[in-house]
This record gives sequence, C-alpha cells and structure tokens, in this order.
Amino acid sequence: MTVRYRADAVVPCVEPGVVLRPGVVEVADGVITHVGPEASATVAEEVVVSGALLPGLINTHCHSPMTLFRGAGGGLPLERWLGEVVWPREANLEAEDVYWGMTLAVAELLRFGVTTSCEMYFHEDAIADAVLAAGTRAVITPGVLQLPGRSRDGAWWEPQLDVFTDFHRRRQGEAGRIDVGFAAHAPYSVPMEGLAAAAEAARSCDTLFHLHLAETEMECTGFLADHGTSEPLALESAGVLEGRVLAAHGVWLDDDDISCLARHDVAVAHCPQSNAKLASGMAPVTGLLAAGVTVALGTDGPASNNDLDLWEDMRTAAFLARLRERDASALLAAGALDLATRAGGAALGRPDLGVLSAGTPADMIAFDLDDPVFVPWLEDDELFEHLVWAASGRLVTDVWVAGRQVVRAGSCLTVDVEEARRQVETRARRLMEVQ
Amino acid sequence: MTVRYRADAVVPCVEPGVVLRPGVVEVADGVITHVGPEASATVAEEVVVSGALLPGLINTHCHSPMTLFRGAGGGLPLERWLGEVVWPREANLEAEDVYWGMTLAVAELLRFGVTTSCEMYFHEDAIADAVLAAGTRAVITPGVLQLPGRSRDGAWWEPQLDVFTDFHRRRQGEAGRIDVGFAAHAPYSVPMEGLAAAAEAARSCDTLFHLHLAETEMECTGFLADHGTSEPLALESAGVLEGRVLAAHGVWLDDDDISCLARHDVAVAHCPQSNAKLASGMAPVTGLLAAGVTVALGTDGPASNNDLDLWEDMRTAAFLARLRERDASALLAAGALDLATRAGGAALGRPDLGVLSAGTPADMIAFDLDDPVFVPWLEDDELFEHLVWAASGRLVTDVWVAGRQVVRAGSCLTVDVEEARRQVETRARRLMEVQ
Repeated sequence: MTVRYRADAVVPCVEPGVVLRPGVVEVADGVITHVGPEASATVAEEVVVSGALLPGLINTHCHSPMTLFRGAGGGLPLERWLGEVVWPREANLEAEDVYWGMTLAVAELLRFGVTTSCEMYFHEDAIADAVLAAGTRAVITPGVLQLPGRSRDGAWWEPQLDVFTDFHRRRQGEAGRIDVGFAAHAPYSVPMEGLAAAAEAARSCDTLFHLHLAETEMECTGFLADHGTSEPLALESAGVLEGRVLAAHGVWLDDDDISCLARHDVAVAHCPQSNAKLASGMAPVTGLLAAGVTVALGTDGPASNNDLDLWEDMRTAAFLARLRERDASALLAAGALDLATRAGGAALGRPDLGVLSAGTPADMIAFDLDDPVFVPWLEDDELFEHLVWAASGRLVTDVWVAGRQVVRAGSCLTVDVEEARRQVETRARRLMEVQ
Repeated sequence: MTVRYRADAVVPCVEPGVVLRPGVVEVADGVITHVGPEASATVAEEVVVSGALLPGLINTHCHSPMTLFRGAGGGLPLERWLGEVVWPREANLEAEDVYWGMTLAVAELLRFGVTTSCEMYFHEDAIADAVLAAGTRAVITPGVLQLPGRSRDGAWWEPQLDVFTDFHRRRQGEAGRIDVGFAAHAPYSVPMEGLAAAAEAARSCDTLFHLHLAETEMECTGFLADHGTSEPLALESAGVLEGRVLAAHGVWLDDDDISCLARHDVAVAHCPQSNAKLASGMAPVTGLLAAGVTVALGTDGPASNNDLDLWEDMRTAAFLARLRERDASALLAAGALDLATRAGGAALGRPDLGVLSAGTPADMIAFDLDDPVFVPWLEDDELFEHLVWAASGRLVTDVWVAGRQVVRAGSCLTVDVEEARRQVETRARRLMEVQ
C-alpha cells in the first residue's frame, strides 16, 4: 500500500541547498518510492503534512544511556568529573540501568527528529533491546575498554572482542533496524594491539570500526611524546585505518593528519557542543571537508552536552567553523544541514539513511515551519537559514522510521516516557549513592 | 491585593547558584513583596506554578525590528550582506515597518521569557509604541548614525541628538516600562566628536549611553592605524566613558582595554551567537569578569542570530568562554544564568530588574521543568546545569511584566501574532523588492 505525504516543503538532503516547495514523498512497505514536486502514483492514502518533510537526522556519536549521569558534577574539571562522578557510577552499572537510560534517550532523540544514532556504550544487548522496543534505528558499536582498577595484563581486549563478535552474529540486521559495529575507546586508553585487533574484528564482519580520536590537546601531546607520531599516523602504521572507520571528535588534527584520514576514507563524527562544553577545542571542519573527508555530527553523551537535540549541534558546528576560520561563510547553512543528514548516513556506511530518495527507508520527520522565528520567508533558500540558525528540535512534530509513525504532534508513541523517567531518576539516584 | 505564586523551585538570581525548592513569590500592585521558601503573608489569591519561577531575562543588546531582514542574504560575507541586503532595505524603512518588526520581535522575546530588551534602532517612537502595546519593558537607545550616501559634513549628529533629547523628554518613564537612553553607532562609524556629544547628551539626561565597541578585528586594526590607540583608550581620552556606558560586543579587547572599561564601570553586552555567526571572535568574558566588569548578554539583531532565544546565547556564552580559555570550568552554569538575569539589569542601570527580590517589579517567568531533558535531577544545584546546557526558551510557559500576565501556556496574550506575521512578511517583501 502506497501512502503519499504532501508537504509545504520537502528537503531531500541528497545534495545541499535543494528544497521542493511544495513537495511530495511516496512510501510503500516502509520504503520511499518517489520524491518530487508532484505526485507520481495513484495512492491508497494521502497525508497532508503542515510544514517541511526532511530525512530523520543522524547522530553519529553518542553514549545515550549516559542520561543516567546528566547534570551530575557539571562544575568539575574533566579529570575530576570522570574520576569522581562518572567512573564510580559506571562501575555499578547494570544492564537494566542501561536499558532505561537508553529508552529515555531514544524517546528524546526521536522527539528531536533523530532516527538513527551510533552508540558506543556498555551492555550492548540492553541498548539493542531499547532501540527495537522504541521502533527506532541504531548502529551499535560496543567498545574495547578497561575501566580503571581492572587488570590490564596480556591481551585483555580479546575476551571483549569475542563477546562483541558474538553480539554481531546474534543481532546484526535485527528487525532491519540494528546494525552492529565494533569500537575501541581511544588511542590513549587502548594499546595499539588492542585497537588493531578491534579494527580487524570489524573488517572480518564487514562492518564499522568506531573510536575516539584526537579529542583533547593534552591527549595528543601525551600521545606524541609516547609514540613519536600523531594518533592518526600511528593508527595508519598499525593498519587500524583499513576498512570502514568512524573517528569521533577529531579536534586536534594538523594537515598531515587530515590527509591521512582522507586517504583512508575515515569519516569524522564532529561533536561541537561536547567539544565546547568540555573546552576540548574547535575541530578543523572546513579543512576536513576541503580534503574530501566525510564530516558528520554527534551529540556525544547527554552527560556532556546535555540534551540530544542535534539541531543545536548543527548550529554550533556552523558557529565553531566560522570562529575557527575567522570567516562568516566558512560553513553555510545548507552545508551544516548536510552534516546532520546525508553525511551522517555516509559516515555510518549507510548512504541510504539521512536522505529522502526513492529506494531508501522511509525515515522521515515533519518540521513545523509555522513559527514566528521563521518569519519572513521570502526566497526558497532562506529555509536553510531558518533551519540552521533559528530552529529547535522541539519544532519536530512527526517522525516515521521505516514508514511507521513513532512521534505524533511532538509525543513519542512508542515509549512510555513517564515510566522511563521514573526508572532513570530512581536508578541514577542508586548509582550516585552506592559509589 | 497580594498574589502568592508557589512553585516547585524559585531561582531568585540575586546571587548565583541559589535555588529555593520549593519556593514562593508574593506580588502586590506589580511589585514583589516577598521571596522565600515559605509564605509570609495572608494573600487574596494563590497561583500554583508547575516548574520554576525565575526573573524575566534581560536582552541588553538588540536591534529587534530587524526581524524584517531575518534570513536574508545569509550566505554572504559581512560587507556584502550589509552593502547589498541590509542598507538598501533600511534606506526605505518606514516607521510602521519598524512598529511591526518590533511587535513580532516582542512577541518572540516574551515567548522566550525575555521581559526587558535594550534596543538600538531607527524610528524610536514606533519601537516605544510596540513595546507599550505588548505590555513589555524596554530601554530604548536611539543612535547617532549616518547611513551610506548621506552627507557627513559638519556636526551632522547634532540634529539627531536634538531629536533623541526630545524623545527622552517625551517618553522617559512612560507607563513605568520605557527607559530612554542615547546611543552612537560605533567608534569606527561616528567621529569622536559625535560620540562625545552623544555621551554628553546621555549624561545630561542622567541615562544610559550605548554603543558598539571592538566587534571585529578588522575594525580594531583600522581604528588603531587611524588613531594610534585602541577604541576604549581613545573613548576614555575623549571623555566618552564618563557616565553610565553600555558597550556591545567587546570582542577585541586586550588587558589595557579591559582595565579601562573596569575603571569607568563600563558594562559589556556580550553577544556570543552573533559574534560566532558573523565570525567576529570570542569575547574575553572571563577576563572581563575577573576585572570586575559587568558582563551581560545580548542576542544582537534577529538578522544575525537569527532568533531571539536568549537561553541559547546563555549556553553559547559558556561554550565560547570555555573554548577561549581552554578551561572546562571557565564559566559555570550558575554564572552563565547570572549574565542573562542580574547582570543584565545592572548593565542597564536597572539593578531592580533581572532579580526576584522584595521591592522590585514583578517581571517573572515560569519555566517548565517537566521535560525529559531535565531527568534526572538529583541535587538542587543540578538545576543550573539543566537550565544552561539543556534548556530552551520554548520551555517558558508563563510570563508576567510588572505583575501582569503577558504569556500563558507559551502563547503571548498581548500581541496579535498572526497579524504581526502577516505585516512583517508583506513589509519585508516590499523592502526587498523596492531596493
């Protein structure tokens, strides 16, 4: 059965700057069959969308269950925040905590129009369960990491990788909405042999390898002192950058590092709000894009952002690119939207996500343009100015994942948000108190 | 008649970091009579507020009627944007255009919880009319400026100052909600004699003098080349910094400049989102605060922000302070809220605004804390983390100005928003087409 969605505007996001005003999207069996200014087929049902239709946004770097720690220890410097607040609580984390932290986060992501997130966190089965129950989509990349105080003898990452490989075997492709990749925390926290083993495990499953890269200056200075070369070049030498690699942050990269990422087609998950809040720095987004690197957006975890509204990260990405380059045209509005949509799908190895195009999954959002912050709207391309500089995820009204409606009039239909809130509040208090 | 407002939380903003949970505010005849954890008086009426009560926010630097140009020419570099888009349209601006541009802006400011704005724009009577009609509060500072193409012979600013002095005589204090100050555009656009004359006019009326200061590096480099000294030091020599001075932007200030502002008690209206969007730079907020300078927040005009949601500027101020200082504790959450509230009143010479305190006008906002982005909330002071890192002006539910309710359940009661939208859309199109 084909359903036609007719909207005041359709922004396909296949290439930057295109708006159909008005436009239609036709969907059959969860897949888009037609996008254009005019209808193409006889359809069983027509839905009139007031506002704009866009692809669901893609959050390419998140530790979503960290809703459990949102707002805690916010005034502390990074090391004390990790050492005194986050790690002690994470040491007592149970799978059900992660399930509820993820459930609350997914409701928030959907409500803000994010239909796919790439997740790096513990208790990967709980994450998958929460994603499936909420009717959304995720790329789940459990990561090699040894928490402080546990043994770091021998190849400690190997049993972890065995678990992740089994997770991939069991859940890759589940319900058509779960992708499984592999992660390793970071070059400063995991030995090069562990990074190489995790990347190799990802390649042998033909899937994504995800890691933190060059997030803080202190990390990069220390790595250089220890290894005599930068993180990207060391990873290249160790063969870690073969395959499909997604590097989160990428703040402290020089021209040689950027060239290295470009020649290996490594995608960067840029997390501007986290980088700003934690004073990590401003990533060289303009330089990465000029070198042909795919740059997508991430919120990072809700303990360091603190919300999951990717529209704000889009705006902050443009702010920081302009400040860094001292150029008010460094990242134009249509380009910023591209990072949050098409580039996000590309970065995850899913070029069928983040675009509205025939043959792709019907992951779509309706965005309310009937708000005074969008007045006036005189020329079509001013829509991009409005979406990047004045929008809020709170103006997303409706969301569909694979054609199924999961948000209506700003309310998530698939999550019992009240129950998720109660669970997170109670569990967060327990984790605070037992530490 | 005394009305008691009883809220889940009251944030008085008299000093940073204090939250009463729960709390009450009592109001009689538009003035606050009591703030505390418990009720003090027998009252005629009690209103239960779900969420937090805070003072209305203060936007200390705005050209609000530029809603008329919002989104226009957004991809152009600054000089072309001004020369090709803004100035040609402003040349045809009529008072009624400004009235409607201001009316739409005021509805937006109120909806986001901003109860006072400091306005620098043409057609000051139209601005005052719009503010009074909407039931809000403003400090209106018409500014000395010669648009391109008009004569710059002799003391061209004197007739302008005569008009502004008459405006002050006619409208200062009107309805208890209009303050009138004086402005001059900037040290690079107005001769030093004109700046001094405008500042002197402000002093003789015992009111605020408002100007743009040190916004872009190019401006400051050029000023130094022409005058042999920095903008602040040149203004000091010319006597411009005597009296009550509010300097907008203050991005390019060295230690000597900061000391200069501190010794004259000049307040800075920091506009982080405008400074980022236009690639002007990151103001030395931490250094200014350390020197004892009052730093408040401004959105700047809606053509360079593009919305009037001061909550976003609060968050961006913290982001940029941390990036500039490379210190994740450079501007803490409670300190960022202080900029938008108490410091705003202080910067405008109105220490009775931006705080909830007995004897001050009942300019208050109710903020919805019942949103998943504020979960969990374990310790009282985490409220500041939530308000700064995860809040949105869209979560303001109710607004009162001098005790009169002007926003209820997110809708502005005092402005016909539909009519304002139609007027701005039509007038913006005319201004675009006649240029």
